[in-house]
Amino acid sequence: MDIKGFQFSAVEAAIKKPGRKDLALIYSEVPAAAAAVFTTSSVKAAPVLVSREHIAGGSAQALIVNSGNANACTGAPGMTVAQETASLVARALGIDSTAVQVCSTGVIGVQMPMDRIRTAIPALVDGLPSGTLDDIAQAIMTTDTFPKMEARGGQAGGVEYTVAGIAKGAGMIMPNMATMLSFIITDAAVEPGFLQRSFKKAVDRSFNAITVDGDMSTNDTCLIMANGMAGNPAITEGTAEGSAFETILNDVLLSLAKLIVKDGEGASKFVEIRVGGARDDADAKRAAMAIANSSLVKTAFFGQDANWGRIFAAVGYSGALVDQSLLSLHFDDVCMARNGVFAGGDAEERGTAVLKQKEFTVSVDLGIGNGSATVYTSDLTHEYVSINADYRS
Amino acid sequence: MDIKGFQFSAVEAAIKKPGRKDLALIYSEVPAAAAAVFTTSSVKAAPVLVSREHIAGGSAQALIVNSGNANACTGAPGMTVAQETASLVARALGIDSTAVQVCSTGVIGVQMPMDRIRTAIPALVDGLPSGTLDDIAQAIMTTDTFPKMEARGGQAGGVEYTVAGIAKGAGMIMPNMATMLSFIITDAAVEPGFLQRSFKKAVDRSFNAITVDGDMSTNDTCLIMANGMAGNPAITEGTAEGSAFETILNDVLLSLAKLIVKDGEGASKFVEIRVGGARDDADAKRAAMAIANSSLVKTAFFGQDANWGRIFAAVGYSGALVDQSLLSLHFDDVCMARNGVFAGGDAEERGTAVLKQKEFTVSVDLGIGNGSATVYTSDLTHEYVSINADYRS
Repeated sequence: MDIKGFQFSAVEAAIKKPGRKDLALIYSEVPAAAAAVFTTSSVKAAPVLVSREHIAGGSAQALIVNSGNANACTGAPGMTVAQETASLVARALGIDSTAVQVCSTGVIGVQMPMDRIRTAIPALVDGLPSGTLDDIAQAIMTTDTFPKMEARGGQAGGVEYTVAGIAKGAGMIMPNMATMLSFIITDAAVEPGFLQRSFKKAVDRSFNAITVDGDMSTNDTCLIMANGMAGNPAITEGTAEGSAFETILNDVLLSLAKLIVKDGEGASKFVEIRVGGARDDADAKRAAMAIANSSLVKTAFFGQDANWGRIFAAVGYSGALVDQSLLSLHFDDVCMARNGVFAGGDAEERGTAVLKQKEFTVSVDLGIGNGSATVYTSDLTHEYVSINADYRS
Repeated sequence: MDIKGFQFSAVEAAIKKPGRKDLALIYSEVPAAAAAVFTTSSVKAAPVLVSREHIAGGSAQALIVNSGNANACTGAPGMTVAQETASLVARALGIDSTAVQVCSTGVIGVQMPMDRIRTAIPALVDGLPSGTLDDIAQAIMTTDTFPKMEARGGQAGGVEYTVAGIAKGAGMIMPNMATMLSFIITDAAVEPGFLQRSFKKAVDRSFNAITVDGDMSTNDTCLIMANGMAGNPAITEGTAEGSAFETILNDVLLSLAKLIVKDGEGASKFVEIRVGGARDDADAKRAAMAIANSSLVKTAFFGQDANWGRIFAAVGYSGALVDQSLLSLHFDDVCMARNGVFAGGDAEERGTAVLKQKEFTVSVDLGIGNGSATVYTSDLTHEYVSINADYRS
């Protein structure tokens, strides 16, 4: 992967405990057009508050991120830590501190060991020319079991460019926010307004369409930097190259989002939930999310139990407009129910066979209108309970 | 317990499988003033649709209930079953079929074996003089591990009366609906309008303030019948006797609601969540419910992990007005956080000790206004996953 003008570094700062790289830096050799989507929670981590202010001007040049401590619910001392971190990185790189984005993930409510970050920053900056994006993907993992990285190539004005992204997820995964950390970098030149709009749209179709446990985080951040070092003429909206860029961006984000679900805490199944025939797209998403977040549906997936009634029950309380006599349901291509009742025949056996797969699709048709939505989720397992009962120990 | 003019019966109809009484009847010797709260789901079971119509006039004289089959997502055949069941009971008792309430609980989406109900009804009616309310409480159990019954005595116009209730719960327990089956009977005479208003209020403070898994059922029904056989002058609103009746009603419903949480599927903890200092009561309930429904909070309770940050995270996404710098949190009387940050000292050790108890209280103060709410919930355990992965088998 050749992505021009970006440098990477990761070091061990032993923020939670020693033994792994937990502090990472992405640096663009030139200021990059940038956009971000942050958690919509009212309880926002200090780095979210600082980064939101820094990115208001639509540009960024560096991103420092740590795992092991969320710097959330840490009050004024936490704000000081986030601000000082940005300042130290800025000084070492010779850029303005507002050009630095700060991200944290880990335990909530514990003060950040600023001394360890202060000590680690020189080595972090020194390591820049030699690191890789994969190092960053490794360093931001918490309960993730594998690093998540995607890249796609494109062309604009005859010039090749790359869009690459990394993400971490696993727990506290729910839409209506960035839902995790994900950093996208591209060496393409992209008109800043178009970058923002296309990024927001891509986030809605990917990270805002996944759910593992229905919990929203205090630290969710999804960020893109486009530094233009590929040398293409700036990509603009309403052009063929703009559309191609949007497709590439959607692909990268959706791939990362799906990886997050596949690596959901304790997940043993990957389930695509499609709802069609809704009054409108918003209603379809309501119904799809109610299914995807239902503990009863998710435990039935885990149990490989074709308990389709629980899916209709979730649709029923979703708030979407529903006429129960018009509902139909498929597991992959097996019709489980039509006109609101069991399809009969060998649906039970064939539906159970679908649920025994590691990946399958649940399709619900509300039979009312043309609204549709697709979301991605996992099952609810013993492993999820184990991971979250013991997370801090 | 002496509750005048009510008779009970339960028989084995082998609706799901043989081996236990699964069909039950409550009969009032005279028509009773009645009120009910049904599920607000758009996917309503056939018996809910039939009972809602029957109770529109504000009276009822009999209630037939089965476990083992929910008669939900069963279409027109399901409606015929519910209607025929009411008619058969009515004929055997010599009353109008609209005086009969029909309730079902069990698996969704399976057609009801009407032949077995038809066969069982004569024995069910014959058994009436000799049964007890406890028989009904036993017959309506599904994944419940113990029957749930409460009773309180009162006095009106110098006459003693009793309010008794039974309930079943365990799974699909969430507010904004009756959330389960609960039947309350009293021999008091109560002015019908007052009965409806006080019942609705008591349901809001009890069954609509509990959550086990955040799932709403297709069959939730909470019903009260007041037959006046105690012989008291009708209890009316705005009197001392009216207030006393409301207190008794609240007590009975809240006790039953708490029993449902304690017997929540796989529950090992009973947690009272109190939110104060909210903009208004609705905001307080939003915050309390977000805490009570958070999978991350509930697994931390199970793990006896004083991970208070997850509680603030849940408050943050609840939709309630929140200023994170004003938040405070107690586990019982141990202050875990104030002004949005960790309280320090030995809070961690003392908080963990609280969480090791079987029952404790989580109190959050939003520090904004005077709104408050209390809800009750359980933890999320391995046992919950096991029960729901295998429910139908």
